[in-house]
Amino acid sequence: MASKEEKLSESLSTNVDNLSISPYGPARATVGEERPLSDEEIRKMTDFFHATMYLCLGMIYLKENPLLREPLTVDHLKRRLLGHWGSDAGQSFTYIHMNRLIKKYDLDAFFVSGPGHGAPAVLSNSYLEGVYSEVYPDKSEDVKGMQRFFKQFSFPGGIGSHATPETPGSLHEGGELGYSISHAFGAVFDHPNLIALTMVGDGESETGPLATSWHSTKFLNPITDGAVLPVLHLNGYKINNPTVLARVSHTELEALFIGYGWKPYFVEGDDLPTMHQAMAATMEQCVTEIRDYQKQARESGKAFRPRWPMIVLRTPKGWTAPRKLNGHFLEGFWRSHQVPIPNAVTNKTALQELEQWMRGYHPEKLFDESGALVPELKALAPTGLRRMSANPVTNGGSLRRKLHVPDFRAYGVEVKKGGITSLGSMSQFATFLRDVVKENQQHFRVFGPDETESNKLAAIYEAGKKVWMGDFFEEDADGGNLAFEGRVMEMLSEHTVEGWLEGYILSGRHGLLNSYEPFIHIIDSMVGQHCKWLEKCLEVEWRQKVASLNILLTATVWRQDHNGFTHQDPGFLDVVANKSPEVVRIYLPPDANCLLSVANHCLRSSNYVNVIVADKQEHLQFLDMEQAIAHCTKGVGRWEWASNDQGVEPDLVMASCGDVSTHESLAATALLREHFPELKIRFVNVVDLFKLIPEREHPHGLSDGEYKALFTEDKPVIFNFHSYPWLIHRLTYKRQGQYKLHVCGYKEKGNIDTPLELAIRNGTDRFSLAMDAIDRLPMLGNKGSAAREALRNEQIKAANYAFFEGVDPEELTKWSWPF
Amino acid sequence: MASKEEKLSESLSTNVDNLSISPYGPARATVGEERPLSDEEIRKMTDFFHATMYLCLGMIYLKENPLLREPLTVDHLKRRLLGHWGSDAGQSFTYIHMNRLIKKYDLDAFFVSGPGHGAPAVLSNSYLEGVYSEVYPDKSEDVKGMQRFFKQFSFPGGIGSHATPETPGSLHEGGELGYSISHAFGAVFDHPNLIALTMVGDGESETGPLATSWHSTKFLNPITDGAVLPVLHLNGYKINNPTVLARVSHTELEALFIGYGWKPYFVEGDDLPTMHQAMAATMEQCVTEIRDYQKQARESGKAFRPRWPMIVLRTPKGWTAPRKLNGHFLEGFWRSHQVPIPNAVTNKTALQELEQWMRGYHPEKLFDESGALVPELKALAPTGLRRMSANPVTNGGSLRRKLHVPDFRAYGVEVKKGGITSLGSMSQFATFLRDVVKENQQHFRVFGPDETESNKLAAIYEAGKKVWMGDFFEEDADGGNLAFEGRVMEMLSEHTVEGWLEGYILSGRHGLLNSYEPFIHIIDSMVGQHCKWLEKCLEVEWRQKVASLNILLTATVWRQDHNGFTHQDPGFLDVVANKSPEVVRIYLPPDANCLLSVANHCLRSSNYVNVIVADKQEHLQFLDMEQAIAHCTKGVGRWEWASNDQGVEPDLVMASCGDVSTHESLAATALLREHFPELKIRFVNVVDLFKLIPEREHPHGLSDGEYKALFTEDKPVIFNFHSYPWLIHRLTYKRQGQYKLHVCGYKEKGNIDTPLELAIRNGTDRFSLAMDAIDRLPMLGNKGSAAREALRNEQIKAANYAFFEGVDPEELTKWSWPF
Repeated sequence: MASKEEKLSESLSTNVDNLSISPYGPARATVGEERPLSDEEIRKMTDFFHATMYLCLGMIYLKENPLLREPLTVDHLKRRLLGHWGSDAGQSFTYIHMNRLIKKYDLDAFFVSGPGHGAPAVLSNSYLEGVYSEVYPDKSEDVKGMQRFFKQFSFPGGIGSHATPETPGSLHEGGELGYSISHAFGAVFDHPNLIALTMVGDGESETGPLATSWHSTKFLNPITDGAVLPVLHLNGYKINNPTVLARVSHTELEALFIGYGWKPYFVEGDDLPTMHQAMAATMEQCVTEIRDYQKQARESGKAFRPRWPMIVLRTPKGWTAPRKLNGHFLEGFWRSHQVPIPNAVTNKTALQELEQWMRGYHPEKLFDESGALVPELKALAPTGLRRMSANPVTNGGSLRRKLHVPDFRAYGVEVKKGGITSLGSMSQFATFLRDVVKENQQHFRVFGPDETESNKLAAIYEAGKKVWMGDFFEEDADGGNLAFEGRVMEMLSEHTVEGWLEGYILSGRHGLLNSYEPFIHIIDSMVGQHCKWLEKCLEVEWRQKVASLNILLTATVWRQDHNGFTHQDPGFLDVVANKSPEVVRIYLPPDANCLLSVANHCLRSSNYVNVIVADKQEHLQFLDMEQAIAHCTKGVGRWEWASNDQGVEPDLVMASCGDVSTHESLAATALLREHFPELKIRFVNVVDLFKLIPEREHPHGLSDGEYKALFTEDKPVIFNFHSYPWLIHRLTYKRQGQYKLHVCGYKEKGNIDTPLELAIRNGTDRFSLAMDAIDRLPMLGNKGSAAREALRNEQIKAANYAFFEGVDPEELTKWSWPF
Repeated sequence: MASKEEKLSESLSTNVDNLSISPYGPARATVGEERPLSDEEIRKMTDFFHATMYLCLGMIYLKENPLLREPLTVDHLKRRLLGHWGSDAGQSFTYIHMNRLIKKYDLDAFFVSGPGHGAPAVLSNSYLEGVYSEVYPDKSEDVKGMQRFFKQFSFPGGIGSHATPETPGSLHEGGELGYSISHAFGAVFDHPNLIALTMVGDGESETGPLATSWHSTKFLNPITDGAVLPVLHLNGYKINNPTVLARVSHTELEALFIGYGWKPYFVEGDDLPTMHQAMAATMEQCVTEIRDYQKQARESGKAFRPRWPMIVLRTPKGWTAPRKLNGHFLEGFWRSHQVPIPNAVTNKTALQELEQWMRGYHPEKLFDESGALVPELKALAPTGLRRMSANPVTNGGSLRRKLHVPDFRAYGVEVKKGGITSLGSMSQFATFLRDVVKENQQHFRVFGPDETESNKLAAIYEAGKKVWMGDFFEEDADGGNLAFEGRVMEMLSEHTVEGWLEGYILSGRHGLLNSYEPFIHIIDSMVGQHCKWLEKCLEVEWRQKVASLNILLTATVWRQDHNGFTHQDPGFLDVVANKSPEVVRIYLPPDANCLLSVANHCLRSSNYVNVIVADKQEHLQFLDMEQAIAHCTKGVGRWEWASNDQGVEPDLVMASCGDVSTHESLAATALLREHFPELKIRFVNVVDLFKLIPEREHPHGLSDGEYKALFTEDKPVIFNFHSYPWLIHRLTYKRQGQYKLHVCGYKEKGNIDTPLELAIRNGTDRFSLAMDAIDRLPMLGNKGSAAREALRNEQIKAANYAFFEGVDPEELTKWSWPF
């Protein structure tokens, strides 16, 4: 075997020299000598391309005189020049070439703008194909509309320099780089006829999330899913550095993408006529291959993983700008990244250079008297919904099908008396989730980074296997649960699965991500941006609401099975709580029935990021289904059966939020009631974290009156919290009586502990909680001190037992409500 | 040109079929038929390997009877079985083969355990080479020591199942996957003779951070830096799924790593004797190539980027376990990931199977009567500091050289009067940083994701260029600042640069990361784990303190130049503030002299994660150097010159934290004093955020008395904060008078705004702050209402001007202290 492999290796070694990686010169392309375009077509496509380039400059510079019908003066310029020029040309060039194929083959396609700062390329194309004016009538296809279109760009009250939610045809903003490919794949899953033309920046390509997302083809089924056509744009430079991929040899570059499982086609150069021919031929080749692979799989009924085509497009950064200005390189260098002539406002020569450059695109030939694109160019764009910026998939809410959610009550557990029976809430929930999967085989998927089984959700495989387009081995039949077609998407990349889920939702479908709690910080930034996207969409009238992004966190900190300190971080909630109250929800259901009720609510909701925290181990069950529904509907409440303050003001409030926290808090309550039968203790549980905020700050917030009715305004509250304690303080700092609120929670005091020891170190175990309460009840006097000492001894005994024996958490925490 | 390229592509296309990607059978290796080992060597290496495998199982299962000198009973087992078996064999196999070469070539090498859960492999080797017993004398090389060694593993009070800080020879814990390669590169930068043997898990390989970190070779100089020898372990499975890379064709796999710029050598199989030969030959080939490339570069003085060798090792997951148990696949399947026979405690047959398996390694032949490894096997390991688990580089603090920090006072700006002159704090700081670079050319580097220039730090290029081992173009001479040898490390991957920096620091050097504030959430999780590593190290006696990890955040939210909503998130501080007070520090210097003072302190400190937040634009300067030093030393203080409460209790405290926040807060103070000359206003600024916490919770915290002396206990405090306001509330909720504390800060109310509008939306502009103050001073009566209205009108006027004109932030906020 070795011989064949060696040959490859050798053939590559001898090619290591760099074969022309400069972006200049006539087109060099894999497809070779094909020339599909007539001279006339080339002329028109060049004119269209120049029209978009003209608009890009207009957006960056002009607030008046949009078509340069007067000599350009500084008064026509925006005072503050903002925007990015560098990647516009390559993106627009690609967009225009797709238009030709959309028309020719009636393709259902949309555009993902990965380089991020290239919004002008997308906006100009949307404007020229007429969509922008349809969506925003004041940005009409005439001189006045164009002036408004220019002025609003990167201008106060206007639109941003990325493909923000205001951008028709965008479902990927690209503010933070790295997610274009995973978003594109998410959008084409279960959309078999869709092609996501995905422009990937070479800067973006250096990010980790992008680098691994190329492997997404191993999870795409050519029968049930559409296709992603990536165009890696070797633009050459980032803000101030060359890009890695633009400076490796052609051989390495080609090998890399073959290695990733793609078939790379190269289009390189800056000579427009030959580049047009090369790009037209290459793109057509790619689209044809995609359609052929799909046809082959669909007609045979046999799914397989083709080596999908992709394009490597090497053009100069800032293409069509002057190569040099004032003795410095501009086109083909990082200086063209942002505003290419930054001193146009202050320097007369610079202003003239700008004018000359803009006039070089001949706006007077491209636009008619009224200011509209001339008809022969307009005819190059597709029409109606085939225009990429009008593709309904990019306004996913408009396509959103209803999720069929079975009656969750049928999946409940029997709880005759609270705090007696133990059961795995997560495996119970799994049966419900399985049937959600079963009922929504075309528009619901479950995502996770290789933890679905570990998280006790394996029941869902009965309704949908894990998608796997790689090779199969003998042992896979032994419970592997892999299939070409399935509903569960697992890759060990939180970034990729979150990106897929975001793309899936933003294109009109539903889904859920399950993850270990400790590793969810990996996607803090992604989730934050999805929140911002949702929030912004609320202000964009034509955006329809999409399904909520549901994140189920489990394998939580309190049952880490000695797994060590780095596996402990419940702080994702802090990150989410910082986002706009309009779009985030956090739930900590204490048991199985509450988890079912909460999950039912989340799955049916729209436009939120819902975070559900629930452990996967066995736990005490507290509420029967009717109680759970009532409790979760309120989001917070007094538990009658666990309280003895009937008809009177309590002496003490024991409160909890989280499953393990509730277990320990309830056990502490029992200890206190055993020691002090006369003590009136109210037990309060919080499911919906935002109930704690004042109502004026979050739609779920309790009024001050409601808060006081639950927590009192002057009685000690011992609050046992799942996460960092100060999150509760941050939510309640405005509440009266907050100085009587003692919150216990995780405080980074971990070690190789039993769960009991971890709780003791952090003061969240039943004994610590009960002692905390006694400390705050001086009226208990000597009896209090004696009880405290007894509790302390019990705690030491339990801890020692745990420490020396290394016992199961179940055994250690085994306990039931004694009243 | 196309023809050559096409040939490669075609040659690959024809090879797409899978050439034996099963892990079973005699060794198949790139090196072919080489057989460097004698039969005797093979026998010994096999015995050594079996000894480590025996120890791995012992760690997972046994608390007594370590050498099975009695029949195994359930009483000898730990009650709770924890640990991971799956990757142990491949890792140990690799470790043992490196030992041979270390001895043969006197190599300076250490081991990075990427797969994360493979600590038993590392621990067993450390124990057998004697290091473990030297470091922990109670884990001696005898029966009793082995028993303790076994019992402590994943046991309460013991050690974790990753290569945690307690592990001799570890500088990479691998709790969260993805950073092995970047850590390894960080460790070998500026360590020219060091080889980091880096085991990369195939699960880990799917993560984004790992996928892009392979490109690190483009930043490694063969003259000044050491080498990383990666061993990609195609173990085949993750927790419950196959791995992507183990299920692609050989051709794709080889192409991928050639594409990444490496020269992959393959060693595949499960037949131990032939695998020994193959691995011995391959590793020796790799080490030889590394040394040859280094020699070539060093003797010629010409740096270049070789195609560095790497190894792809394909062995069965759980290698040497039974292939099947109870009719289910174990070896070579995901069932061997964790505890391979999980029911050994409860099932008698399972217990017997375990005993039989362990005895199959023949512990009685491997260990002598006392329980020590027999001498002929012991002789296989290197001795002294050449033992990988004793390499001092992995206890970096022990090698840490002093950082030469020039006197920062020499870089200060002249401030004759506070709040008058404007200047870029960051570009001022850059001159100081430049000289830190200059003075520490072998042990200080600056890291960043392509933002160093944009962050106004370009002055440092005078002392150290950006390292770039890719190709050079003509235009690079035009201010590219690239060089083979340099001190600045830039790649557009926050994960990679943070990983490099962590590896650089943990191996005994110093550094600083600069980043845009909005994108730092990308590495929340990495920073959190570095904090945990540092915290844990404090408990490990033999760990010497390392330099602090310094993170400079700039391009902050308040000067985002219309850059849009996704580019705004100051919440990294919340993530950091959740970490242990022992290891985190947060500073928000308000001006250039404070930034210098703070940076000086951070660079000289050890064992912290220091976060410094400072904007890069021009800002008002407030304090002269002496004032700045005094202020930063205290961390928080009243500004005499901006206050008029001399000798009396103030009516109002205006407080700020952050540069833009201070500017606006000071302007608000001036407005108030203009309107109400009789009002006594104290101006307080916070530089060191943790000053706000009570002293019992953070070593920097103010006592309650100190806090009260500054903020009063009953006067209104209008606190203008850089980040989310509730972070201040979370820090101060225990303070008396906190109910009088009104915090303004970022609240996710962004848009395409001028900085002034953004501030107005969030209530942090001078007008809003002044109006907030008036609202809290009812004693101002009608005069207050009138002033409030005037301020509101001024605010509207300013906002309208900003809105319609789109002016520069500098122009809008231009202002100076009038008193």
